[in-house]
Amino acid sequence: MDASKILSNLAVATHESGSPFQEQAFSAAKRWSKLGLPQAKAEIFDRKAKESASVFRNNIESYIGTISVPVGVAGPLRVRGAAGSRDYRVPLATTEAALVASYNRGARLLTAAGGCNARVVAEAVSRTPMFAFNNLVEAAEFSGFIETQADLLTEAVSQVTSHGKLVSVACLIEGNHVYVDLQFTTGDASGQNMVTFASDAICKLIIEHSPIVPQYWFLEANFSGDKKSTTKSMGHVRGKRVVADITIPRALVEQQLHTTPERMVEYWCAGAIGGVLSGTTGIQGHFANGLAALYLACGQDVACVAESATGITRLETTGPDLYASVTLPNIMVGTVGGGTSLPSAKACLDILGLAGCGNSRALAEVCGAIVLAGELSIIGAFCSGDFAMAHRALSRGQEMQRSNDND
Amino acid sequence: MDASKILSNLAVATHESGSPFQEQAFSAAKRWSKLGLPQAKAEIFDRKAKESASVFRNNIESYIGTISVPVGVAGPLRVRGAAGSRDYRVPLATTEAALVASYNRGARLLTAAGGCNARVVAEAVSRTPMFAFNNLVEAAEFSGFIETQADLLTEAVSQVTSHGKLVSVACLIEGNHVYVDLQFTTGDASGQNMVTFASDAICKLIIEHSPIVPQYWFLEANFSGDKKSTTKSMGHVRGKRVVADITIPRALVEQQLHTTPERMVEYWCAGAIGGVLSGTTGIQGHFANGLAALYLACGQDVACVAESATGITRLETTGPDLYASVTLPNIMVGTVGGGTSLPSAKACLDILGLAGCGNSRALAEVCGAIVLAGELSIIGAFCSGDFAMAHRALSRGQEMQRSNDND
Amino acid sequence: MDASKILSNLAVATHESGSPFQEQAFSAAKRWSKLGLPQAKAEIFDRKAKESASVFRNNIESYIGTISVPVGVAGPLRVRGAAGSRDYRVPLATTEAALVASYNRGARLLTAAGGCNARVVAEAVSRTPMFAFNNLVEAAEFSGFIETQADLLTEAVSQVTSHGKLVSVACLIEGNHVYVDLQFTTGDASGQNMVTFASDAICKLIIEHSPIVPQYWFLEANFSGDKKSTTKSMGHVRGKRVVADITIPRALVEQQLHTTPERMVEYWCAGAIGGVLSGTTGIQGHFANGLAALYLACGQDVACVAESATGITRLETTGPDLYASVTLPNIMVGTVGGGTSLPSAKACLDILGLAGCGNSRALAEVCGAIVLAGELSIIGAFCSGDFAMAHRALSRGQEMQRSNDND
Amino acid sequence: MDASKILSNLAVATHESGSPFQEQAFSAAKRWSKLGLPQAKAEIFDRKAKESASVFRNNIESYIGTISVPVGVAGPLRVRGAAGSRDYRVPLATTEAALVASYNRGARLLTAAGGCNARVVAEAVSRTPMFAFNNLVEAAEFSGFIETQADLLTEAVSQVTSHGKLVSVACLIEGNHVYVDLQFTTGDASGQNMVTFASDAICKLIIEHSPIVPQYWFLEANFSGDKKSTTKSMGHVRGKRVVADITIPRALVEQQLHTTPERMVEYWCAGAIGGVLSGTTGIQGHFANGLAALYLACGQDVACVAESATGITRLETTGPDLYASVTLPNIMVGTVGGGTSLPSAKACLDILGLAGCGNSRALAEVCGAIVLAGELSIIGAFCSGDFAMAHRALSRGQEMQRSNDND
Repeated sequence: MDASKILSNLAVATHESGSPFQEQAFSAAKRWSKLGLPQAKAEIFDRKAKESASVFRNNIESYIGTISVPVGVAGPLRVRGAAGSRDYRVPLATTEAALVASYNRGARLLTAAGGCNARVVAEAVSRTPMFAFNNLVEAAEFSGFIETQADLLTEAVSQVTSHGKLVSVACLIEGNHVYVDLQFTTGDASGQNMVTFASDAICKLIIEHSPIVPQYWFLEANFSGDKKSTTKSMGHVRGKRVVADITIPRALVEQQLHTTPERMVEYWCAGAIGGVLSGTTGIQGHFANGLAALYLACGQDVACVAESATGITRLETTGPDLYASVTLPNIMVGTVGGGTSLPSAKACLDILGLAGCGNSRALAEVCGAIVLAGELSIIGAFCSGDFAMAHRALSRGQEMQRSNDND
Repeated sequence: MDASKILSNLAVATHESGSPFQEQAFSAAKRWSKLGLPQAKAEIFDRKAKESASVFRNNIESYIGTISVPVGVAGPLRVRGAAGSRDYRVPLATTEAALVASYNRGARLLTAAGGCNARVVAEAVSRTPMFAFNNLVEAAEFSGFIETQADLLTEAVSQVTSHGKLVSVACLIEGNHVYVDLQFTTGDASGQNMVTFASDAICKLIIEHSPIVPQYWFLEANFSGDKKSTTKSMGHVRGKRVVADITIPRALVEQQLHTTPERMVEYWCAGAIGGVLSGTTGIQGHFANGLAALYLACGQDVACVAESATGITRLETTGPDLYASVTLPNIMVGTVGGGTSLPSAKACLDILGLAGCGNSRALAEVCGAIVLAGELSIIGAFCSGDFAMAHRALSRGQEMQRSNDND
Repeated sequence: MDASKILSNLAVATHESGSPFQEQAFSAAKRWSKLGLPQAKAEIFDRKAKESASVFRNNIESYIGTISVPVGVAGPLRVRGAAGSRDYRVPLATTEAALVASYNRGARLLTAAGGCNARVVAEAVSRTPMFAFNNLVEAAEFSGFIETQADLLTEAVSQVTSHGKLVSVACLIEGNHVYVDLQFTTGDASGQNMVTFASDAICKLIIEHSPIVPQYWFLEANFSGDKKSTTKSMGHVRGKRVVADITIPRALVEQQLHTTPERMVEYWCAGAIGGVLSGTTGIQGHFANGLAALYLACGQDVACVAESATGITRLETTGPDLYASVTLPNIMVGTVGGGTSLPSAKACLDILGLAGCGNSRALAEVCGAIVLAGELSIIGAFCSGDFAMAHRALSRGQEMQRSNDND
Repeated sequence: MDASKILSNLAVATHESGSPFQEQAFSAAKRWSKLGLPQAKAEIFDRKAKESASVFRNNIESYIGTISVPVGVAGPLRVRGAAGSRDYRVPLATTEAALVASYNRGARLLTAAGGCNARVVAEAVSRTPMFAFNNLVEAAEFSGFIETQADLLTEAVSQVTSHGKLVSVACLIEGNHVYVDLQFTTGDASGQNMVTFASDAICKLIIEHSPIVPQYWFLEANFSGDKKSTTKSMGHVRGKRVVADITIPRALVEQQLHTTPERMVEYWCAGAIGGVLSGTTGIQGHFANGLAALYLACGQDVACVAESATGITRLETTGPDLYASVTLPNIMVGTVGGGTSLPSAKACLDILGLAGCGNSRALAEVCGAIVLAGELSIIGAFCSGDFAMAHRALSRGQEMQRSNDND
């Protein structure tokens, strides 16, 4: 199928022909001429948005400009990762008052306690095509066939991508349907597109070679967990499974969070069960806040917050001190590809020192560490009773006496 | 507790004293002097970020500038809402190729079919404080007491907020713990802070009047579903429960999606079960993509994508045609408060014509409608086999012949 | 529709005409003449099964006899319930070695600690008919209508049943479908049939009066949670929500469970998270074992174990001692109706002293208490390391020296 | 640890010393002398219960007799299984009116349509010990070690059991905890005890050889899904994953279920979404009814209904006809061990022709087939509107004109 056919299938062409540099800006201007709204245009299609229009051409369609989102910095956040200990300043983009303040407080607590451990303990992104047959007997036969073809499929993938590797193939039968769980590693990219293209190649190869022809098939049928929190990833991995933990001396808890380890464990227990009673996936407080802000700053796919913001927070007392961990089974981050090379994202990754190849696992460790910081800070606030007051003050931009600010 | 105490509790003060206009920019500059990184600074702390620093003072702490996110426009999207039929141009901010194109395609399909219905069918935001007792007998006694105090609590709320109304109080007992589910309406604001402050007032009143004193209590213990997808909201509501539906003539499906209603229903079924097999909450394809892009453009809390991006998509054939609906039990949007008055957000809300009071339910209807558009478009792409090709082309900014673009 | 029509709809008649006393036995004999298998017949269709055939005629169809299941007794189990403290001997029917021994051990521990508290904290059984419309606008209109008709529906129920009371009516809209959640109290019966008949009457009334006619409707569409564990009941109730709790002195834990409160809390935490990682509903160990054995002994619907065996177990240290609670949101028991008047069931309810009217809430308290006993015993076994050994010994009927048996 | 120690750990000895034949009956009599209740005793501790007391000694403790549960027979049920087509008469033990009638109706429908396909498509039972460490770094190191020891562990298992085989070992890290998912096949036994003993041996070997010593560990920590419905098994297997499907000619649907394939698919859709809205695991109607009745009749562990009664029912139209399937990921059945050799169970297995070695997979196929029958029957009843009426008639043992009964 050629490009024009694709476009007609997409119903409207959204990219521009002609010189890419001028074309994007020109089309955007045309769109504004329809929209009117000069004030909105001045804000969104300002000089910079106009000049950089072409920069975004692989990342957006029907471009009309850019929005500005404020970014704050939290830290230093000391992370004892796979490559050693490192102090990060963490850029967080958000419009929600108190978010950066809270993560900042948690980051400094972790750092004061010597830094948290963080590791990527598993890694894989999946696509899950589905093949439909006349009956379960055919489905079982197909499934048996597929499970003998790992080598063939791996080879097919190598011709489509040099970064993506097929690491496992498993069939799940439901009635006369077979979901094929294709798991890949994706180098330093988040990898959703990579696994799509690789799976597309695999499916075509399967259709060509299968001794039994499906009635119909789809490239993906939701078993992968793409853009959705799942218990499948909770007990396995999607993207990167990241764990961060720390033991915090009692004195630091008392001094910086104004509560005790015991009270925090009581909160954890109440919050864990509150989540279970509400039917959440996993047990956690507000992973979404930190991940959304970090993903947004660093050019990650913010929609992946829907799948990433799930996992397990655990607090225990260990002697007089506090043990705390977070487990995030579904961190979708990359330091190449997607939005990571766009100017803002590149700048934020540079603040972390994590732009480009070789850094995606470290970025995932930062995700784990900042989320741990945020869990400790919010639980501390609920325990000391400060939560409502802090939000009231910060959301009103209230002037305050700074006691020990040195940022 | 006074402001300085709050701050010491938050460990670091993050707002600035002195003239707000200069102070924010000045502090940001100081932070950059520590960070170094002149290129990153030039991108993030550009002239506009510097000049508008004070604008963001109620929305961010430890400010270092702004990031730019490209925004595209999808539509026209015809929505037959509670206030009549209206055509929207929908701003979507994202860095993911193909997203705007796909939603745009879906929006035009809906519009070509006469527009989709959309309604807010339920509305409430909850906070769920937890009170701990010595044993279940005390917990049951407390629960019995609370359920007689609705009038008192309602009155207490009216003294804290004029926009928020307490609409229900329910106690859930777990062992010796009582979760009090306080449900509020929040006017045209998304309302998380409003319900926090109101619940804080309620809790203090409860503690004062309760015939039985809890061992300890927390303002919130995760039963509310804040920032988490839950089945609690699936069978009830959090924020706004929005439904959108449409019947699309067969010819339009064939012409614009290049597939048939029957094939799309087959996909729906395979995808629904794929989701269930993976342990998702609800049944849907990629609510997260559209919601994240719309929330981001319009100054909504993007972290709420973690809770909002869940619900039910349903496709059925109806005679020769296609019936499609989406149900989103957990839309968290407002047209006042939060980030909605920041320049970019205000501009995007103006594109929708939905800035300010009286518009939050219409904005929720747009959420439902654009999500419906996105589900139809992606299912169409999986059915026609275009999904991988479209992503490959659009993520490479490939030049294409436009066949019927008129935007 | 008359009875003969119902039968033709059920395809095969399964009850017998003529004298009920002889007919059942006669038909059973005829069935055995087809089956052959004289040894099996001798076991299942023994003299007692033959003589009591007619006893079972309202409880089984296509009767061929009875099976024998061994029953053991656990206790004394001291329950401090709504009606005061009482010691129970609890009949448990099972074929699984170690089950009775383990619950017995737990029961005695609770009793030694003074007995556990137990309460029914909420009560309701639901049926959830579903009505389908052309579009969501009609669905919303219908929903609005229903919510004004509570009085009419309550009245309709009173004409169908004197025991069942309609206690709430709520509509949940999904696309163009409306699920009507009808909640009833059911006196001392478990009540599934009662709510079916009442809901049937309600639906017919609705169809007669609704200003808007549904395309089609079903008496039940799975939102009720009938025979399924759900998070809906976790955050609310189905049947009876029962809580049991106790504080156990440290010395008793050490002496009877051979472990410490701290170790048991460590286990609880590990088990809670293990459950969450596997995607369970609620947090618990083996509710199913005790409930299945008690339901079976007492003529309850054993299939309801699928819904009842879910909830929350919580262990905490409280000073040096152990606090433990179980919360069971979905206990489906009755002391009248169903299988409760059959000879074995009546005998087992008599052992409990809970046969007949006025006892269903106490029976639910026993469910809570015995489940609490079982959780403590199994956690104790995992903590002391005895679990495997005990199962090995007991499943081999191994002879043992009794050290302190006095039952 | 010797037997007497185990017993003191179990707090009370529950087995008897001395001659097993007399001892059980003697102890039971002693228990009755405490209980009193001559009528209950006459029912439960009747002559047969007394005489067969010793038969149950490996299956129950604190024996007081037996309960009688009525059993009906459904079928013929034609199953086209792995070993060919076979007609079964299916014994179902229950006290719930209409259950056998409904499954019988479904069974005959399947048979009339030529029989359903059924297959065990995956097989494994797991135990999941948990090991706790100081921090995640140690946990990751331990995990890395375990994953290299599969051969050693497999060898250890072979010394404990000849029937159980270790088929996979996987580590899941959560914070500083490692859950080790040990998956076994268990021959023709259900296998819970077998995997317990094998895992116990594995754990001891691990503790002996691990380069890093855990702080503490437990033989099982709930990740296995034992006695709990989980989404883990939904996307994989626990016990046996069984699928059954069939295509039923339209005429049969109309004639035997008095409805149409289209209406049944509408019901399926409504019921699927009703389940999802309520937060169930999987999508199904009433698996629990048929499984509980079959497990109970055949000496299976009835408590396993809590885990087994979950899965996916799917109905689709295929041309004019109806396609229907059920997928049961978690069937826990055996034809040896557990309660299977007790007299009633043996008799019921003989009715099926499936007692003893070599039959467990066929028994699992029967589970799938009977569950499929039940789903079709109940959906048919909801579609034709007969559900309430049939339950009303059958639960009242109402006399009926038999139109086409021939059983």
